[in-house]
Amino acid sequence: MTYLINNPAEFAADALRGFAAAHPQYVTAVHGGVVRSTETPPGQPALVIGGGSGHYPAFAGWVGPGIGHGAPCGNIFSSPSGSQVYSVARNAENGGGVILGFGNYAGDVLHFGAAAEKLRAEGVDVRIVMVSDDIASNTPDKHRDRRGIAGDLPVFKIAGAAIEAGADIDEAERVAWKANDATRSFGLAFDGCTLPGADEPLFHVEEGQMAIGLGIHGEPGVQDVPMGRADEVADLLFDGIMKEAPAERSGRVAVLLNGLGTVKYEELFVVYARVADRLREAGLTPVRPEVGEFVTSLDMAGLSLTVVFLDEELERHWLAPADTPAFRRGEVPGERAPRTDVYEPGEEAVPPASDASRELAGRLVEVLDLFERTCTDNEQELGRLDAVAGDGDHGQGMCAGSRGGTAAAHRALERGAGARTVLVHAGTAWSESAGGTSGALWGAALTAAGGAFDDESGSDDARTVAALVAGVDAVRRLGGAQVGDKTMVDAAVPFVETLRAEYDRTGDLAAATSAAARAAREAADKTADLTARLGRSRVLGAKSVGTPDPGALSFSLLMEALGGHLGSR
Amino acid sequence: MTYLINNPAEFAADALRGFAAAHPQYVTAVHGGVVRSTETPPGQPALVIGGGSGHYPAFAGWVGPGIGHGAPCGNIFSSPSGSQVYSVARNAENGGGVILGFGNYAGDVLHFGAAAEKLRAEGVDVRIVMVSDDIASNTPDKHRDRRGIAGDLPVFKIAGAAIEAGADIDEAERVAWKANDATRSFGLAFDGCTLPGADEPLFHVEEGQMAIGLGIHGEPGVQDVPMGRADEVADLLFDGIMKEAPAERSGRVAVLLNGLGTVKYEELFVVYARVADRLREAGLTPVRPEVGEFVTSLDMAGLSLTVVFLDEELERHWLAPADTPAFRRGEVPGERAPRTDVYEPGEEAVPPASDASRELAGRLVEVLDLFERTCTDNEQELGRLDAVAGDGDHGQGMCAGSRGGTAAAHRALERGAGARTVLVHAGTAWSESAGGTSGALWGAALTAAGGAFDDESGSDDARTVAALVAGVDAVRRLGGAQVGDKTMVDAAVPFVETLRAEYDRTGDLAAATSAAARAAREAADKTADLTARLGRSRVLGAKSVGTPDPGALSFSLLMEALGGHLGSR
Repeated sequence: MTYLINNPAEFAADALRGFAAAHPQYVTAVHGGVVRSTETPPGQPALVIGGGSGHYPAFAGWVGPGIGHGAPCGNIFSSPSGSQVYSVARNAENGGGVILGFGNYAGDVLHFGAAAEKLRAEGVDVRIVMVSDDIASNTPDKHRDRRGIAGDLPVFKIAGAAIEAGADIDEAERVAWKANDATRSFGLAFDGCTLPGADEPLFHVEEGQMAIGLGIHGEPGVQDVPMGRADEVADLLFDGIMKEAPAERSGRVAVLLNGLGTVKYEELFVVYARVADRLREAGLTPVRPEVGEFVTSLDMAGLSLTVVFLDEELERHWLAPADTPAFRRGEVPGERAPRTDVYEPGEEAVPPASDASRELAGRLVEVLDLFERTCTDNEQELGRLDAVAGDGDHGQGMCAGSRGGTAAAHRALERGAGARTVLVHAGTAWSESAGGTSGALWGAALTAAGGAFDDESGSDDARTVAALVAGVDAVRRLGGAQVGDKTMVDAAVPFVETLRAEYDRTGDLAAATSAAARAAREAADKTADLTARLGRSRVLGAKSVGTPDPGALSFSLLMEALGGHLGSR
Repeated sequence: MTYLINNPAEFAADALRGFAAAHPQYVTAVHGGVVRSTETPPGQPALVIGGGSGHYPAFAGWVGPGIGHGAPCGNIFSSPSGSQVYSVARNAENGGGVILGFGNYAGDVLHFGAAAEKLRAEGVDVRIVMVSDDIASNTPDKHRDRRGIAGDLPVFKIAGAAIEAGADIDEAERVAWKANDATRSFGLAFDGCTLPGADEPLFHVEEGQMAIGLGIHGEPGVQDVPMGRADEVADLLFDGIMKEAPAERSGRVAVLLNGLGTVKYEELFVVYARVADRLREAGLTPVRPEVGEFVTSLDMAGLSLTVVFLDEELERHWLAPADTPAFRRGEVPGERAPRTDVYEPGEEAVPPASDASRELAGRLVEVLDLFERTCTDNEQELGRLDAVAGDGDHGQGMCAGSRGGTAAAHRALERGAGARTVLVHAGTAWSESAGGTSGALWGAALTAAGGAFDDESGSDDARTVAALVAGVDAVRRLGGAQVGDKTMVDAAVPFVETLRAEYDRTGDLAAATSAAARAAREAADKTADLTARLGRSRVLGAKSVGTPDPGALSFSLLMEALGGHLGSR
């Protein structure tokens, strides 16, 4: 249960504001997140670490000398948008390039990747390190395809220490990947977490059961088994990790026992007592073990064990000083002046537009208003469907995205924008407001649809069809999913096929759109049914492809609304 | 809910073992708790801080350079016993005297006080500092009679820094009291916490309500009010504290926003955003604020705000380095050698005894077996009654005490002990095993009853009556409660009065004991009824006097069992 909220939609932003207010000696709030409030040496690589909110201390809690240089902060359980990542990286970068570090999730890969493209286009040397420590999420031979969980801390701590010790970007990237390859985590959960403003947890673990390998956003685990005693839980986690212990090892390990939210410290220590015995029996020496809350999932009841198999280099960096809001060890040497320059993204330009295009833009804004209402009306249902196989944030993301996109479109319209500009502004804002995979895809869709219009011409049915087709094409191109992958593409492809065929046949846009929306809904219902049947029985990888996705349903809902709107004109 | 348990009765001990195993660079486990694992300078006062378990990081999490020298750790929500406090203090003491620091609760006052007496008798200079920051628990003119909650951290942090800076015991005691007098906390809760092994929370806050001023063991609050938005909660806490802001103040404050267990970090930051605004409006500058979990209550949903009104001296010590398992700031200067000497309490002596006294001792052990069974059978009911107005640990404490006392009595009997020695050993062990107020009182009662016997004489009814009277006298002397204070004395006094009168009249021990037990039960039922009716509607102080106490019921249950046992012989 989340108790302390002002407005659920502003929860993550409010938390970020409070976080920055509490730690002025460490961080400064910038657009999209925080960066260190003190200057870094010119030429030092910047380690920019981030992901969705709801995991504190991850990630903003680790910004400071010895670990991170900045943290873009997405909405709860949603990737920060590309422009958030870009803004934070721009602020953190100081001539030594940028390492973007994040847990390996589809949305983060998409948004951090987009930011990397933009930074590279501007001449910044960008490296990407995806943490993938969760052994429950893929097989050992695919370690780098696994999800990132509590291993985020040691990997970023070690990379940050290497940078503090003088590593350049090549060296820092090498050490970060080496740390990731040496890190294994295994976790389980006893009960779900509740998104701010929601009445019900995202998911439940059946009473008396525990879900092994459950992800930090409630992604399905390996299996549910009867609840064990603390010692049995310790053995299960330890044995799981030791199956992957490297054959050649120093015998020294960093150990993290991480509480996900409502498992309390005393319980973690009861488990650690057994872990310590098992380490000793296995001939392993724990080096500065840490027991507490490091990568949380709001109020999820669960824990994870992380082991980093150390060599001399990794141990040196693991033991090095760090001074951040939530992770402190000793004193990081050196004086630090307060930083002075802050990059802020400016307002997007509004090119001149004809009266006809402005009139069309007004009608497009009406459609966006309708999209926003449709998202709001269906928020709970989309969240529920997503929680079956994903992280339950789809309803929230669609609401935040449509709200942000619609608001930006209204602002552009007031500034005299035409049809193209209104949609492009809406697309950028949707992506930024929603975060997450679907936010990026809807943002790209709107932007691409805008590209089919211009700021001169007036209303034109053929152009509207072309815009819808262009939007769906962008989703297919960017997301890389195929029909049958159980993503929004499952509904989007039948939609455009029907739309084109019917419009060519009849020339009636409203009827063609309604028919296309019906085809989309039919496909979406199949996908939803499959999701419900597959349920939590499969291990799912970190990639969106193959993850049952309520995006098909939300796509068809918005297209149904559009069809109805066109028909009522 | 507590998920990770091996054996509920061993939960706190298991947690302590895991805690020590995880932090060998900071702490060494000794009898009763932990002390620093590194040597302290000879002549440096030792700050020994403690209380019940279930509040981590308080108190063991703060043992290390810059804060505490040792922490006795009681059972969950129960004071450590006098012998635990004594053992930890003996281990921490290094020629500079001992400051015993703890939150102001009846059980802690009793047990730390008992340890202080023993240490002083051995020539150690002992000072006692009780933290009393909870403004909900008493009026401003009685600040030092209030309960201690999250203010424990700044008070001990500041006292520890003064010691690290070279303060002697007079100076350290002065600074500690000054910090306590400058510290105000105010908290509220949304839901209760569940003791390890229990199925139900100790208490519930009604849904949609919040309980203002609720104590960290679920002690009743000031009032229940409808749940507020995060900003309203921040205002409520801030306004409550500011009512007591000193007229003369520097304008600089240490601020702690503390989560009690399941209120998560992001929620705390949402609240802190508002607190920061209010501080600014009030012209107050927060100095290194801390937002997180510092003094928890297992999985209780709640939070508290603590403000320390700083002067130059308090600010200097608040900002000083500290290096402990759960609270770290910078580097505490100086090399530290591992400590080598550890004091361990030896086995208690068993003086020679006659065959007759050993035979009597065997019968006394049968009675203790019966007490243990009676406690076990009534554990849930006693816990439930206690939870109405106390911290819900009475059933658990009686079980742990009777189990420990009976086991010690069996061991003494096997070693050839007579009647007196068996009871004295049982009393010491009961107090130590149970912790809490009732543990100390039952321990004292058994010890005093033992004093009415010797290790020579055999069974004698008059002596048994004298032993029962001596036991009750010890409870009255040590606890200081009067009939009508709603403690075990309510039942114990009618018991001894009836026992003496009936035994004098009839000379029948069994009948007199049964009649006395009936009188005790009648009185206990009145007390229980009062407790149920008073419920959570009153603000209760930190003292046991005036706190409705299921001790009357447990006393009458054990005496009923004794009466039945004597009658069945």
